[in-house]
Order: sequence, then C-alpha cells, then structure tokens
Amino acid sequence: MSRILNIGAAQMGPIQPDESRASAVARLVAMMREAKGRGCDFVVFTELALTTFFPRYYEEDRAKMDHWFEREMPGPETRFLFETADELNIGFYLGYAELTPEGRHFNTAILVDGNGKITGKYRKIHLPGHADHDESRIVQHLEKRYFEPGDMGFPVYRQNDAIMGMLICNDRRWPEAYRVLTLQGADLVVLGYNTPDINTTGLYEPSYLRSYHNHLSMTANAYMNSCWVVGTAKAGVEDGCGLIGGSCIIQPSGEIVTQATTVEDELITFACDLDMAKLGKETIFNYAKHRRVEHYGRITSQTGVEIADQAAE
Amino acid sequence: MSRILNIGAAQMGPIQPDESRASAVARLVAMMREAKGRGCDFVVFTELALTTFFPRYYEEDRAKMDHWFEREMPGPETRFLFETADELNIGFYLGYAELTPEGRHFNTAILVDGNGKITGKYRKIHLPGHADHDESRIVQHLEKRYFEPGDMGFPVYRQNDAIMGMLICNDRRWPEAYRVLTLQGADLVVLGYNTPDINTTGLYEPSYLRSYHNHLSMTANAYMNSCWVVGTAKAGVEDGCGLIGGSCIIQPSGEIVTQATTVEDELITFACDLDMAKLGKETIFNYAKHRRVEHYGRITSQTGVEIADQAAE
Repeated sequence: MSRILNIGAAQMGPIQPDESRASAVARLVAMMREAKGRGCDFVVFTELALTTFFPRYYEEDRAKMDHWFEREMPGPETRFLFETADELNIGFYLGYAELTPEGRHFNTAILVDGNGKITGKYRKIHLPGHADHDESRIVQHLEKRYFEPGDMGFPVYRQNDAIMGMLICNDRRWPEAYRVLTLQGADLVVLGYNTPDINTTGLYEPSYLRSYHNHLSMTANAYMNSCWVVGTAKAGVEDGCGLIGGSCIIQPSGEIVTQATTVEDELITFACDLDMAKLGKETIFNYAKHRRVEHYGRITSQTGVEIADQAAE
Repeated sequence: MSRILNIGAAQMGPIQPDESRASAVARLVAMMREAKGRGCDFVVFTELALTTFFPRYYEEDRAKMDHWFEREMPGPETRFLFETADELNIGFYLGYAELTPEGRHFNTAILVDGNGKITGKYRKIHLPGHADHDESRIVQHLEKRYFEPGDMGFPVYRQNDAIMGMLICNDRRWPEAYRVLTLQGADLVVLGYNTPDINTTGLYEPSYLRSYHNHLSMTANAYMNSCWVVGTAKAGVEDGCGLIGGSCIIQPSGEIVTQATTVEDELITFACDLDMAKLGKETIFNYAKHRRVEHYGRITSQTGVEIADQAAE
C-alpha cells in the first residue's frame, strides 16, 4: 500500500529590494527544472517568493507600498513560471502579496496544477507583528499594517492525489490551523515562511531557538494531525536582516526526512508516501473516536485569555 | 522580575499487580520527603499512581475491576500522603482511579495544597484505547472500557502563585487541551502518564518514537501555549509490559530543563520562574491580538473528519 508523491521544497536565498520579479521568477523556474529532473510532481515555493520581505519597511502612506503587490496572477512577469509548470507537468505552491481588484491586500498562497492552472488559494490568517511604527524594535514587522487577515478560512484541495492544505509562515505555530485542515482530511500541509533569525522586538532570545521553534511547531503538528508537512524558507541576509533556513519535509510521525543545509536557493526532495498519514488517522489520532468537542468550547467562543474566577488573584 | 515555584516531578518505577496501596503510598511519601529536602513547594506524581496500570487486563464483568478504584480520597491507605503534605507544607498532583458514590468511574487527578486539602480535580477527557477485548493486540488498552470520559472540562486553579491546569497522559497529545487551559491563563500544566514502550496494537513502530512523541507533544505545546509543562511517568516493566520514562520539566520556550534518566522511582526538580510564561503570552502567542476564532469553527462544530466537496475523490 503506497501513494507516492515526489515533492520538492524549493528554498530561496535572499531577494534584495532591487531584485526584479523577472529575476526572482527565473530562480524559481531554475529550481522547478531541477525538481523535474529529480522526478518531482509538486514543488513548494516560499512565502512572498517574488520580492524581498517588505513588511520590514515602514511607510506612512500604505498606497506607496502597492508596488510590492501583484494585481494579477499570473501577470507579465510571473507567467513564465506557469508556462514552465505546464511544460514540465509539475504543480506548485507559491506565496505572494495579493492586491485584489477591490483594493484589498492579502498575504496569499496559490496552488497550481501541472497544466499551469490555479486550482486553489489561501490567504494568511495569523498575521504576526504590528500595524504601526514601533521605535523600540530592531527591525519593523508590519504585516498587520500591510495585509488584512485572510478571509477564506482554511480550505483544502485535492491535488496530485493528496488532500492538500496551505498555510503561510506564522500560521505554522497555531495548532488551530492544522486542526481545521485535518478535520477536512488533509494528509499534506504545505507552507512557506520568512522568519528573522533574531527576535526583532529587541528582546533577548538565543538565535538557535528560532530554528528550534520552526521545526518544533511543524514536527509536532505533523504528528498530532497525522499529516505530511512541507515547510519552505526564504533564507539568508536580505537587506541586512537575516532569515533562518531549515526548509524541511516532515512525515506524519513528526520526523524530518530531509532538510536544507544552506541559506541559499536549495532544492530538497522526498518521495512522500501519502498513505503513511493513515496510521495515525485510524488509531491514536482518530478524531471521531477520541475528540471531545463538548469540552473545547472556549477555542471558538473566546479569542483572548479570560482568567476564571477560581484562578483570580 | 521572577515568580519562582520549585517543582518536583516524582517519576515512579513499576507497580506490580500485587503491590498494596500502602506500599505505593510509602514510595510517594519517600519522594515527597526528598522533594522537601531539595526545597520543592509542589510535587507532580503520575497517572494511576496507586496501582499497576490495570487497563491492560480484560475483565468481562466490569464490577470485578472495582477493586482498582478509590471510593474515597483520602482513604485509609492514602491518608498518610495527605498528612505528610500537611506536615511538610508541600502541595501535589496525584492521579488515581476514581469510583464515585454514584458508581461512576473516572481516570482522575487531584490538586492538593500544603495543608493536605484537595483544592482541585480533573477527570481525563481523552481516553485512549478501546472498550472491548481485541484479540489482535499484543497488550490490551481498555481505558475506554473502564472509564467514562471526564465530565469537568479543563478547569484551572490558582495554587502556589501559579495558574495551574491538569492533564492526564493521552491528553498531552491533544492541542485542544492545552489551548482550553491557557485560554484561562494557565502558566503551568502538570500531568502524569503511563505510556507503553511499544505500539501495543502490534503495528510496527520503532521504540524510540514512543519517547520522541512524548517529548514532542509536551515541548511543542509548552511553546505554542507559552506555559511550563511538567510530565511525570510511571516507568519500567510492569507485569511484563514496558512503560517509557522520560519524565521532564519544560519551560515555556519548549526546552526541556531537566529530565529523568532511569525507569525507576526518581525525583527531578527545577526552580521554575513562572513569569517566563509572560514573554510568549504578551508577544507571539498573544491570543487576543492574533487568534482568529471566526475561522476555527470546525474545531468545536465537528468531531471527526469531514472531507470537503472540492477534495472528494
């Protein structure tokens, strides 16, 4: 019994602020061709894969940041990626900044099939950071300024014989996200991330913890949701700001099966047996048998902390 | 800024089926005295700490298993533990099988203060295993036969200056449990476990994975909920069946700060600064700022998997 999907995680080295979309797309296409050469059916690119991580820049007038966003997908500078997918018959996940015809801004990922057609979309729900300039920070992290929270929930899609869910960066630290996806049967969760290698608030945090938390969040949620997880970084030093690498593919046991070793453009691949997700789903994490939703009410009825009376000081 | 609680995790070696409650209690008391000698304010004992792990035994007539349960707490054989707590001014968590006056059966944990008074109770919600004899298994795991699922939700209690939540064994693999506790402000989650060192269904599973999953679940949930986690095992070979050890104390960064090295009675201690939970709670895991409950609906509206139309085969 096996249901193999050969997946590539195409880590991207830094994109400097002056690098063009065409140049970034050329790098993605090069990795897509390499993935095809290694037998991949599907490639996971990173979050905001077409530009530098622009939420580090404060701009009073938000409209002046619109040049970082895509008004159409594919557009003139990105079409080549879709055409190559069609040529090679290879699907992909791509993260980018989306500006809708209505003028709304999202941190978005799309799913594209082996014919170069968009088959799914997800808009990032767990936006980290802050909305206003914060002088106390070493580096700004203005995702809450430039993006709206996603408005599509956590959809899943059937593609390449997987039930696939998409997440983006900070979502991977929120167990709610994986749970909503796997309650819909997801056996594969794909995501990209741009994660600073220091705590940019200026609070002391040992640098190794950033990488530990990255892997800890994804491995534990792969295990507790019995699904494959593919996490792809943008890595290296962008405009003076370091981003962690550590792109990896994780099997449903929560074990990393392959992992990037650089902070540059680097493709890692693994022949993933999607049926390995069944063991957990049918036994220890059989939701129908073991979940007790009558005791989970606070998870949906309450956003922030509410200290119960018997625990008040 | 610090708010130190010196905690002991009192791992217990095996309890053979013929060992008396009085003998088990004497072992717990010995560890409590050792904990006091090391300056502890609070000791975490294990799940079902008074008897062997009896859900491994099938009995057609459930009533014949009632001798494994406690009808009162404290009772004649357990009172010594409460008296010692009062003498030493040390609080504790204790797991045991509870038989209520109404004849209901629960896998229960209680919180006891430094005066030897019961101040909190939790009844295990995520019961693993099965309800009927399963011939295909190497060892039975009949928690669903002998216990009802807990009926108290996930309460938190203020004790020793902590907001403390209790879990039991398999609960530690369910992110919903930690989330409900920390939505009520928990900065410390304490739990005991009895975890076989093989997959008792007979399915192949490398033995090291049992220990990996134990730590993975607790470390990731400590991090994703920004709380201390103390996990205490019953360990070693009970009636021919091995149980993992690995008792540990985990700080809110998800790092293990101390860990047992044996599968015997073994006390580990750590001076836990409860205020370390604040960093995460005020920044990356500030629930009020970042959670988006409008997209979590399935977590409470749906128990098992429901594959969405667009993902159907």
